[in-house]
Amino acid sequence: MNLLTLKGFRDFLPPEAKKRQYVVGILKSVFEKYGFDPLETPTLEYEETLTGKYGDEGDKLMYKFVDHGQRNVAMRYDQTVPLSRVVAKYQNTLTFPFKRYQIQPVFRADNTQKGRFRELLQCDIDTVGTASLLADAEIVAMVIEAYQSLGFKHITARINDRSVFAGLPTIAITIIDKLKKIGPAEVKKELEEKGIPAKTLDEITTLQPTVMIQTIMDHVKKFGITDDIMTFDSTLARGLDYYTGMILEIEIPEYTVGSVGGGGRYDKLIGMFAGREIPATGFAFGFDRIIEAMEEQNLFPAALAKTKALVTIFSKELMEKSLEISSRLRLKNIPVELYLDETVKMEKQLKYADQKGIPYVIIIGPDEVSKEIVTLRNMKTREQKQISLNSLPDEII
Amino acid sequence: MNLLTLKGFRDFLPPEAKKRQYVVGILKSVFEKYGFDPLETPTLEYEETLTGKYGDEGDKLMYKFVDHGQRNVAMRYDQTVPLSRVVAKYQNTLTFPFKRYQIQPVFRADNTQKGRFRELLQCDIDTVGTASLLADAEIVAMVIEAYQSLGFKHITARINDRSVFAGLPTIAITIIDKLKKIGPAEVKKELEEKGIPAKTLDEITTLQPTVMIQTIMDHVKKFGITDDIMTFDSTLARGLDYYTGMILEIEIPEYTVGSVGGGGRYDKLIGMFAGREIPATGFAFGFDRIIEAMEEQNLFPAALAKTKALVTIFSKELMEKSLEISSRLRLKNIPVELYLDETVKMEKQLKYADQKGIPYVIIIGPDEVSKEIVTLRNMKTREQKQISLNSLPDEII
Repeated sequence: MNLLTLKGFRDFLPPEAKKRQYVVGILKSVFEKYGFDPLETPTLEYEETLTGKYGDEGDKLMYKFVDHGQRNVAMRYDQTVPLSRVVAKYQNTLTFPFKRYQIQPVFRADNTQKGRFRELLQCDIDTVGTASLLADAEIVAMVIEAYQSLGFKHITARINDRSVFAGLPTIAITIIDKLKKIGPAEVKKELEEKGIPAKTLDEITTLQPTVMIQTIMDHVKKFGITDDIMTFDSTLARGLDYYTGMILEIEIPEYTVGSVGGGGRYDKLIGMFAGREIPATGFAFGFDRIIEAMEEQNLFPAALAKTKALVTIFSKELMEKSLEISSRLRLKNIPVELYLDETVKMEKQLKYADQKGIPYVIIIGPDEVSKEIVTLRNMKTREQKQISLNSLPDEII
Repeated sequence: MNLLTLKGFRDFLPPEAKKRQYVVGILKSVFEKYGFDPLETPTLEYEETLTGKYGDEGDKLMYKFVDHGQRNVAMRYDQTVPLSRVVAKYQNTLTFPFKRYQIQPVFRADNTQKGRFRELLQCDIDTVGTASLLADAEIVAMVIEAYQSLGFKHITARINDRSVFAGLPTIAITIIDKLKKIGPAEVKKELEEKGIPAKTLDEITTLQPTVMIQTIMDHVKKFGITDDIMTFDSTLARGLDYYTGMILEIEIPEYTVGSVGGGGRYDKLIGMFAGREIPATGFAFGFDRIIEAMEEQNLFPAALAKTKALVTIFSKELMEKSLEISSRLRLKNIPVELYLDETVKMEKQLKYADQKGIPYVIIIGPDEVSKEIVTLRNMKTREQKQISLNSLPDEII
């Protein structure tokens, strides 16, 4: 039997899955603190809904097939196009500004050798239906708070106004976008190869913040974000060509792989579906990179496991006592695990607690039953003590 | 532009998405209280991993296609087969008993006229690696607690031992499984049509609980579940043919569409992948039916929205005051929304709060600024009062 997963697709066993849930939980709590609501869209859409929206490469990397009803269908490639479809479809029932977050997997048949995955969790926030710079500022402030809430101490928010590239051909933007990666000399060389004067880079580099960007940054400070986090970077370009205003990238200086998220204003995209221009601004968190950066910086709590104690089973005869005590603790909303085999030696049960990182083990043998107590073992210090049933909850919380 | 979703696929706008998240949140908290850990598996698997495991109908309804690398792939059809693959693949690193929950969408090209969806959220719990009846009892107890935690007052857990059907042909089990739907006369008729004596039904109906079921039910009571919830039903058959021991279905008497979840012990299935027999027991929650039943019984909290107040913007000049107050409240971890347009009339801002079901609105005009107070409007009673900034948090929590 073939036990392999497809290249670029992953199993997340409990230790990884818990980390992912931890990050999702923190992000959601920040989004909801700012009044953003959840949205879910289907994994499969009509192919025509998705094609032609992501450029040639997107169309190439999209998973497409013909379904049982001979419909041409495609798998979710991002969450911005489905958002645009939703806004257009329900524009008469939605309340605007429509502030939504969406956390679902997307599918891209990309080259996995670049460290990319073919199924990845996309985590987006967007404010749709207002051109106010307040909306951009809120996105910047909330995003910074989200990274802070995950535990990152150093965060850089690079901000730019996409209009500084007005008049430049797309190829120039693509080349300048690589500045951080390849350096100014190489950028200039590539520009000249495409017939664009090398001094274009110098002109862009020395630009001062536009009034728009200055206003947004002023607003962001009023949200309680300190000055040192934000930096105007006139060379920031962002790959996608649908941006129309502020653009933003978040970097964690210690994490050198690349930015951990990015976004900006895109006032024309949703109009493609809605038939009228609907302004929008948003941000996409780089979920896998965030996990990687958090691992590097040890930002995950030591005890991601919620289980406080393993209630062991001393013998078949005393099994019911263990069952009663585990139920009693759960009634107090304390997460505990009952060892699920009455025929297994105590040694193996202790090993189970150890392997699962459960901090305490509770032992109820004949001695404990007669005295109406339990033995509590601290799995870290290996200390054991006998305590009363009444004091048990306080000892293990 | 085509704005349609595919038949059987759904958009979940915020009101629906919040309900789904509420249910998922409660289920997860119960699972974790019993020490179950999350697992995630890929949306796409090698086709050969999934085919031949769900019978002819499963193979027919499975979404399959050829990917960019000419691999035959299929979309997740359930979570039990991926679990079996995971257990086989990682059997040397997992800790047994392996207790996992998994909440991911599955895909079935089913007839939507039966009220079925083609993408649906599957919510499973399973204990793998122990044949102990304690594990079965824990599943029953935890499942009942989960439905109780969702708010259901009346729950019936129908329990049976699959071995009561030993020796009967599969077709007989399939027919008897329809007893609740079509009644005894029709079952007997169908049995006879297939050459099976009608009295088979009477024989099954009058069976007493097996020792195994009696033991499980005794254990479940020790978990704190009252007697009236569980009922032995010798005619309960469950559709799938991989069950080998206890089988279980949960019904909400007021909800007549059908059972809201089911499961049981399946000791042979995982061995197909692992090459050695690995016992397992588990349960699948009927997510969409649960939502429907909860809606019928008004079990969703009135305020699923977390936002406590909308901070309005009186004028462009006073915008910063509103921004400051919203930030101050969020610093106290109070979820508030700032209205994101400084050019919109107060009336429209109030309407926005109303449409989004936000309970309070905060107004900061020139009068309020000079007195260092705010006006607080209760959106339900339409009462307004002026209060100090210091007392604001307590008023809206």
